[in-house]
Amino acid sequence: MEPIKVTFLGTSGSVPQKDKNFASLIISYKGENLLFDCPEGTQRQIMSSPHSLMKINHVFISHMHADHFLGLFGWIATMTMNQRKEKLVIYSPKKGKEKIKKILAEVVKPSFEIEYKETKKGTILKNKDFEISAFPLKHEVTCFAYVFKEKNKIGEFNRKKAEKLGIPVGPLYSKLVSGKTIKINGKTFTQKDVMDYSKSKEGRKIVFVSDTRPIKEIIQHSKNADILIHEATFLEKQKDKAIETLHTTALEAATTAKKAKAKKLILFHFSARNSDPEEILKEAKKEFSETKIAKELETITI
Amino acid sequence: MEPIKVTFLGTSGSVPQKDKNFASLIISYKGENLLFDCPEGTQRQIMSSPHSLMKINHVFISHMHADHFLGLFGWIATMTMNQRKEKLVIYSPKKGKEKIKKILAEVVKPSFEIEYKETKKGTILKNKDFEISAFPLKHEVTCFAYVFKEKNKIGEFNRKKAEKLGIPVGPLYSKLVSGKTIKINGKTFTQKDVMDYSKSKEGRKIVFVSDTRPIKEIIQHSKNADILIHEATFLEKQKDKAIETLHTTALEAATTAKKAKAKKLILFHFSARNSDPEEILKEAKKEFSETKIAKELETITI
Repeated sequence: MEPIKVTFLGTSGSVPQKDKNFASLIISYKGENLLFDCPEGTQRQIMSSPHSLMKINHVFISHMHADHFLGLFGWIATMTMNQRKEKLVIYSPKKGKEKIKKILAEVVKPSFEIEYKETKKGTILKNKDFEISAFPLKHEVTCFAYVFKEKNKIGEFNRKKAEKLGIPVGPLYSKLVSGKTIKINGKTFTQKDVMDYSKSKEGRKIVFVSDTRPIKEIIQHSKNADILIHEATFLEKQKDKAIETLHTTALEAATTAKKAKAKKLILFHFSARNSDPEEILKEAKKEFSETKIAKELETITI
Repeated sequence: MEPIKVTFLGTSGSVPQKDKNFASLIISYKGENLLFDCPEGTQRQIMSSPHSLMKINHVFISHMHADHFLGLFGWIATMTMNQRKEKLVIYSPKKGKEKIKKILAEVVKPSFEIEYKETKKGTILKNKDFEISAFPLKHEVTCFAYVFKEKNKIGEFNRKKAEKLGIPVGPLYSKLVSGKTIKINGKTFTQKDVMDYSKSKEGRKIVFVSDTRPIKEIIQHSKNADILIHEATFLEKQKDKAIETLHTTALEAATTAKKAKAKKLILFHFSARNSDPEEILKEAKKEFSETKIAKELETITI
C-alpha cells in the first residue's frame, strides 16, 4: 500500500513562536504534494522539511486571515527566481483570488501560470488516486475544512477467474476492471466476472480542520477518518477566549474526534499561551486516547 | 559610553536558507530600536532575538524587492493582535508607501498609526542622540544605504572653570553648555568659557549597505565608519553573476572598506550558493583584515 505522508510545517496559531512557525502542512501521496495553508515563513519551513519548494502544484487556503496565506508571496517570488515553469493551482474561499492577485501584483511577476480556483462545499479536485473536498467551518470569516480521500479500491482483479472464462490475456483485462463490457464469441462479460470484491477497500481519509468553533459538520465529515488534524488553539480554562475568537479547545477537538470515531486525532495551531504540549495532550486524552500533538517538521505516515 | 548594539536578524540574500533567514538587522541605542529591512520571517526572528516586536518605532526599507519588505505585513498583523498603540514610522524609497499601503489594505487594519516617510538622499531622521541619513546605491530598482551616526560630543563641561569665573551652580551651567549666552554682573559668558574642547569626540558611525554594485559613494559615506555592514551576495568566482544581478562580491566589499578606512567590515546577505563562511571570510580578508561574517541572531556591540 502506497504510504500517505503528512508533514507539519508549523504548529503555532495566529502568531509564530520562537520554536514554532504558523500552522500549515503538506499531504504527499503518489508523487503529489498538496500544501494546506501557506502562512509567513512557509518557504523556509519547506526548505527544512523533506519537501521541495518547486514540487508542490496545489495549495489549499482555509481562509484569508494573514496567518494562513501571507507566505504565498515570498514562496512565489523564490520560485520565480528559480524559474519555475509548472502551473500552480491555488484554491481559496470566495474573494481570495482577488486578494492574492492584488498583493502579488505589488510583489513579483510570477515565471509560471497560477490558476485560481474558488473553494466551495463539495469535491474540488479529483484524479485517479484521490479526491479533495471541502466543507465550511465556523470562524470570523469564510473558512473551509479540507478532506483528502484516497480512492476506494473496488475489489481486486482475479486472473484465474478471467482465464477460466477464456478471456484472452491482454488489454481486455484492464477494460473489464475499469468497468467496461466486452463480448467474446457472442458471450458478454462485465467487471464482476473477473473481480474478487472481498478484496475491496475503503480509501484512507485525512481531514484538516483549521480555525473554527466545534460544529456537527466536522463530526459528519470526519466519520472514521484515518487522521483528523484539528486546531486546538486553546485549553478548556480559556474557553471564553475560544468562544470569543471562534476557535476550539483541545477537549472540544477530542470530543469531535470521539464522536466521529476517527482513528487518530492530531492537534496543532496552538496559542503561544499554551507552551506545554503535555498539558494540551492530557486535556484531549480525557475524551480521546488516540490523540497526538503535532511537532514542528514532523512527518506522520499512514 | 552608551553601547550601540547591532543585531543581525538574518544573513541570507534573495532567498532564505534552512539555517539563515533573509538579511535584516536592528541597531539599538539609548532605548531606540531601529529596524533595517523587514523581509519575510522578520517577526519570528525578532522573537528569537533579545528584542521585542512592540518596541521598534522606526523601520528603514532599503528597496522594494520582496526579500526586503515582505515581513512588514505579518509583523503589523501580530502587533495589531497585541493591540499596539504607538505610532510606527516606515521609511521607504519613492512609491514604497503606495506599495505597502496597497498590500496592507488586503491584510489587516492596523491598531496603531503608521507614518510613511520617503527615503531621500541626506538626513531623514535626527534627534538629540543620533541621526540617520541615506544615499542611493546601484541596484535594479531604487535602493538606499542608511547611515546611523551618533551625535558628535563637543567637548566636556569643566565645572572648575565655571566656578572660577564665579558662575553660580545651577541651571546656568546647562544653558552655557547648550550654546546659550548668559550675563552675570554685566559680564558675558559663552559655551567656550566653561568647556574643555580637548574632550570632543566624533560620534560613532554605522553604515548599512544593502543590494548594490560597488560605487564610489559607498566609500565616501563610509569614511572612518566604526562598522560598515555590507552585502556580499557572491564570491569573486561568481563575479559575472554579481554584475548581472547588481550585487557585490566579498572581495569588492572588502576593497570598499579598505578605501573608506572603515574600522570593521561585517558581511551578510549571502547567496545560498556560498554556504561556507570561511571561504567568504578568506576572500575578503585578502583586502581587509578587519572583516567579520555576520551570524544569525548575533549581536555586535561597540
